[in-house]
Order: sequence, then structure tokens, then C-alpha cells
Amino acid sequence: MPGEFELIERYFRTGFPSREDVVVGIGDDAAVLAPPPAGRQLVVAVDTLVEGVHFPPDFDAADLGYRALAVNLSDLAAMGAEPAWMTLALTLPKADEAWLVTFARGLREAAAPWRVALVGGDTTRGPLTVTIQLLGTVPAGQAIRRSGARAGDGVHVTGTPGDAAMGLLCLQRGIEGAAAEHCRRRFARPEPRLALGHALRGLASAMIDISDGLLADLDHLLDASGVGATIQTPRVPRSDAFRDCLAALPESDRTRAAHFPLAGGDDYELCFTVPPEHEAEVCCIAERLGVPVTRIGTIEMVQGLRVMDEDGRNMVVKTLGYDHFRENG
Amino acid sequence: MPGEFELIERYFRTGFPSREDVVVGIGDDAAVLAPPPAGRQLVVAVDTLVEGVHFPPDFDAADLGYRALAVNLSDLAAMGAEPAWMTLALTLPKADEAWLVTFARGLREAAAPWRVALVGGDTTRGPLTVTIQLLGTVPAGQAIRRSGARAGDGVHVTGTPGDAAMGLLCLQRGIEGAAAEHCRRRFARPEPRLALGHALRGLASAMIDISDGLLADLDHLLDASGVGATIQTPRVPRSDAFRDCLAALPESDRTRAAHFPLAGGDDYELCFTVPPEHEAEVCCIAERLGVPVTRIGTIEMVQGLRVMDEDGRNMVVKTLGYDHFRENG
Repeated sequence: MPGEFELIERYFRTGFPSREDVVVGIGDDAAVLAPPPAGRQLVVAVDTLVEGVHFPPDFDAADLGYRALAVNLSDLAAMGAEPAWMTLALTLPKADEAWLVTFARGLREAAAPWRVALVGGDTTRGPLTVTIQLLGTVPAGQAIRRSGARAGDGVHVTGTPGDAAMGLLCLQRGIEGAAAEHCRRRFARPEPRLALGHALRGLASAMIDISDGLLADLDHLLDASGVGATIQTPRVPRSDAFRDCLAALPESDRTRAAHFPLAGGDDYELCFTVPPEHEAEVCCIAERLGVPVTRIGTIEMVQGLRVMDEDGRNMVVKTLGYDHFRENG
Repeated sequence: MPGEFELIERYFRTGFPSREDVVVGIGDDAAVLAPPPAGRQLVVAVDTLVEGVHFPPDFDAADLGYRALAVNLSDLAAMGAEPAWMTLALTLPKADEAWLVTFARGLREAAAPWRVALVGGDTTRGPLTVTIQLLGTVPAGQAIRRSGARAGDGVHVTGTPGDAAMGLLCLQRGIEGAAAEHCRRRFARPEPRLALGHALRGLASAMIDISDGLLADLDHLLDASGVGATIQTPRVPRSDAFRDCLAALPESDRTRAAHFPLAGGDDYELCFTVPPEHEAEVCCIAERLGVPVTRIGTIEMVQGLRVMDEDGRNMVVKTLGYDHFRENG
């Protein structure tokens, strides 16, 4: 008689995209996959979501399933890679059938548009934790690294960063309405920028996805590239929903929340750098794909991240993490 | 300034086997890997260990690091595959430097003999949980599935199953001495049977590793193959250490513990089936590799698992999981 957690795995056997390159899927000691087509390399990402740390208790199971894959899709987007296969390590306090059916539905909704097959998994008992590992491919030598930014490149960002952190805060504060729902959905269902990521191969000099906050992640990119940058804060785009939510927040939250576009995490937008000769083409591509892209600054030889405020003064940003954001100047 | 969990990842950047097929390792949005050599397929396994479920609280950090990889290596062994790359998803209550250094050492000790590179990871805050995903390769079409067993094949097992469950029980009961230490080590440091796994390609008709217990896992193999088997219980090998520990246990534990060779989990030995024409060659290979292999029964057309006791009577085994073992006949 199979255990309850073995039964659970049956919820994940069907309904996911099927792929001809899956030789052995779920149900053996390991999955067997056809190698990538000639001329392509493998790309591997892994991300964990822990209840109470990365999402609030009682978070919608479908949103959790969606988000657990979306954050990994975003990692592959940031490399310019195409996703193909995933494994799921799911730790659950108990085998709750309704929860599982809903979780699997959300996971399928994230997998279907990108034809990601679920090829293996491990379901265990314990505190709610979801780890997805995503495998994909990229043309050999064309992965977009964090390390290629050069002085003079433009710094760009997709979408309107800060919405996801605002959505989470509205959820925590019980703020309702269309604007809060818009932002909540940006947290729950981040849209992986895969099409743009692929299109930027050969054009962007460096790229990273925004999981910890725009400034924190841009700083990783600058470190890896050995360069610096100046960012014009007023150019960082804010959504109308973000502004509406900011106005609806209690006074005590507003100063912190106003920094979410720079320092809020969880957006899973892309931040990338483009050499001057490719700027025009990147603009055209973004327009064709319908992805909002905004140039927010410029890469410079002098290391460090300089963040200019509305009046052109340098906001000295000491710590950039979304938990640690402080402004000292 | 990087967060403490980002600093942690630095403990994992060095000391692991380096491989020429790692194009981009730890430190970007995703790893980039050279595709497998021509004629080989990819193999992917994932396993999670949760504190209090898969290992006791205060379990030695080095043993945990070792075991977390070893259980995945065992999955690849059971496919006849060669390991190559892993990712680590580590969830920790706090960033304890001494614990991390020790954990990383144990992980390296498991990785070094098989040249497994650590290519990516995610370190998060939460209840202690370790998920490793292991990638490897196998010659195309030669992965050993669970589904190939046929009537007349011999059923074989490596090592002495039951030792690991006995080791865990001795740990819980505070039993000390050489025999208990031998069994504890079999739990903490399972030896992945990779060399034998590879050597069985083209010889074994089906294979599985023993994580849930010999009978439970053999039952999975029988299900997948659509066959049955008869097992001779007296033939299932017991180690001297196992017998010594059994005698040292309190009376109240002995009946349950006596079943560990059939129903105890965590051994990560291999159970496999061999057609008669390959029996002699498998014996020679096992001897050459120094891996103890014992034939414990025979595959039959009639479905179901028949377990014969010392007197040739059929022990009717209703439930086979190591938590659920019951004997009704």
C-alpha cells in the first residue's frame, strides 16, 4: 500500500506539458532526458520558497505553485535561456488533497506557456517549503552573464519594480481594491520575461533578474562586471497602482514603501545593460514584444552605485537589500 | 553589503571538484553546462531531507552534508548513471558559521570521489531542510529502469539491508559500542553503489535503490515490471553488527527491529533483477568490485510479493512501508 505522500505524487503525473525529449519521467529512481540539440548548452536554476519567509501563511496554493516556477523561469530569462524540464521538491505539513490539487493547478498554469515538463520530484513531510529546479538550454556561448557590463552601457529595467513588495504589504495590511489587487497579483503571479530575455541574446552585455530589489541586484551585476553606475531615481518607473496603494497605506508605512521601486524584492523583472550601438534595436524589440523597458542610468568605470534623487543629489545608499535599505544622505 | 545568507554561499564556492564542462558555476542567475558527450542522455534526481523527519535533531552537520548527496548518488546508481553536477537548496534556521563549515565538509566528502561539481544553490531562512538535485549522464538507451524484470530473473540485493534503520534506532536509544557505531555510520554515511550500478548496464533487467525498505522498494519494481516474486527471508543477509545491536536492544524494540532487513528504510543499497544468462557474470563483477551481492529470490509471472519464512511458510505481508510493516500470517 503506497504511503499518502506517494499517492500525492500522482497529482503531478498528468496535466503538465509532455515533451518528446523526456525518455523517463516521474516514477523511476531518476528521470532520463535526451541531451540538448547540437550547439546548445544546459542551463540550471534552483529556488526555494519557505512559508512565512517568502510568502505569508495561508497564501493561495495555486499562486504558490505558479510563483514557485515563475521565480525559476525568471532566472532562465535572465540568462537568455529557454526552459524545458523541472523537478519539484515539496515539503508539506500534511497531505491535504484540496490544497494539492490547487497547488498543482497553479504549477501547471506557469508551466504550460513555456512547455516545461515535470520530470521528477520528492514529496516529504515537514514545514511548507517548495524547491523547484529548472533545466533549460541556451545556444552555446550565448548565455547572458552578469559580468559583461562596460562603461557607457545603458542600464535598463523591465516593468514597474516595487509593485510586488507593495502587493505583499497591502496583503499584510488588509488593504483592498483594484490597485492593491493589481500589486498583489504582481507578487503572486510574476510574469517571467522569457521572450525578452531570449531576444536580448547578442544585444545585452549583462543581465540579472530582480529578486532582492533593483539596487541590490544591480549591485551584484556591477560587482560581477567590475564597473559602477549612476541611476536617476526619477526615471525608475512606478505604476499607477503603486502610487494609489502608497496613498492608501498608513502614514507609518509610507516612507519605507516609497523606496520599494529601488529596494523592494520579489518583482522578477529584468535589469540589463546595453552598449550604445544596440540601444535602438533593444527599444524596437521591447516594443514589438510589448514589454515595457525603461533606461534608468548608465554604467561607468568608477566602481560603486550612485543613486541620484529628483534634485540631482547623490543619495548615498549604504545597504541595498530589501530588508536593509537605509538612506544616509 | 551582502546579507548573511549570501555570505553563506561563499562557503560552497570552493573545495568542490572542478569540471571542464561547467561553463558558468555558482554566482550567476543560473549555471551553464556543456551538453553531455555524444551518445549520452541526461539523468536527473532530487531528494529532500527534513530535520525531525529524515534525520534526528542535532544530527552531525558533516554527516548530513554527506548523506544529502549520497541518497541522490544512490538514485543515479540505481539507473546505472554517472553523476556530474549538483545544485543545493539549503534552508537554515540561522547562519551558524561552524555548522556551515562542517556541513560543507561532509558534502565535499561525498562529492569528491565521484567528481560532482556544485553548480548552483539557494540558501534560505527557515526550518532545517536540505534538497539536492543531482544531474548525471548515461549512455543513450542504457538506463536501468524499474520496469524490465521478467519471470525467472533472480532478485539480488547489495550489502546488508536493515543496518541503517538499526543505526538510527541505536542513536535514538542511546546504545553505544562498535556494533551500534557501525550501524549508525551506515545510516549517516550510506555508500552509493555507483561502480556496481554502472557495471550492471546491459546485465540487470531492472533496478531500484532501497530507501523505504527492501520489500517496499522491491514491490515498486514488481509493480513497474508487471510481475511478482518470491523472496526467501533466511537468504536476506544480516550483518554481524546488526545481530549484536538486536541483542543489545530493549525487549520492547526487538520484534520491530528484527524486521529491519525486510522493512527498514534508509539503506540506499541496490535491489536488482538478473536474467539467468547473466547471473554468472554479475557474480564475477560483484566480486571484482568488492560489493557483497546476495540472491534472495526469484521473479515470477504471478503478481504479488511472496515472502517465505525459515520454515518455507508464506509470511503474508500486507503493508510494506517501513513505518507500516505488519505480519499477518
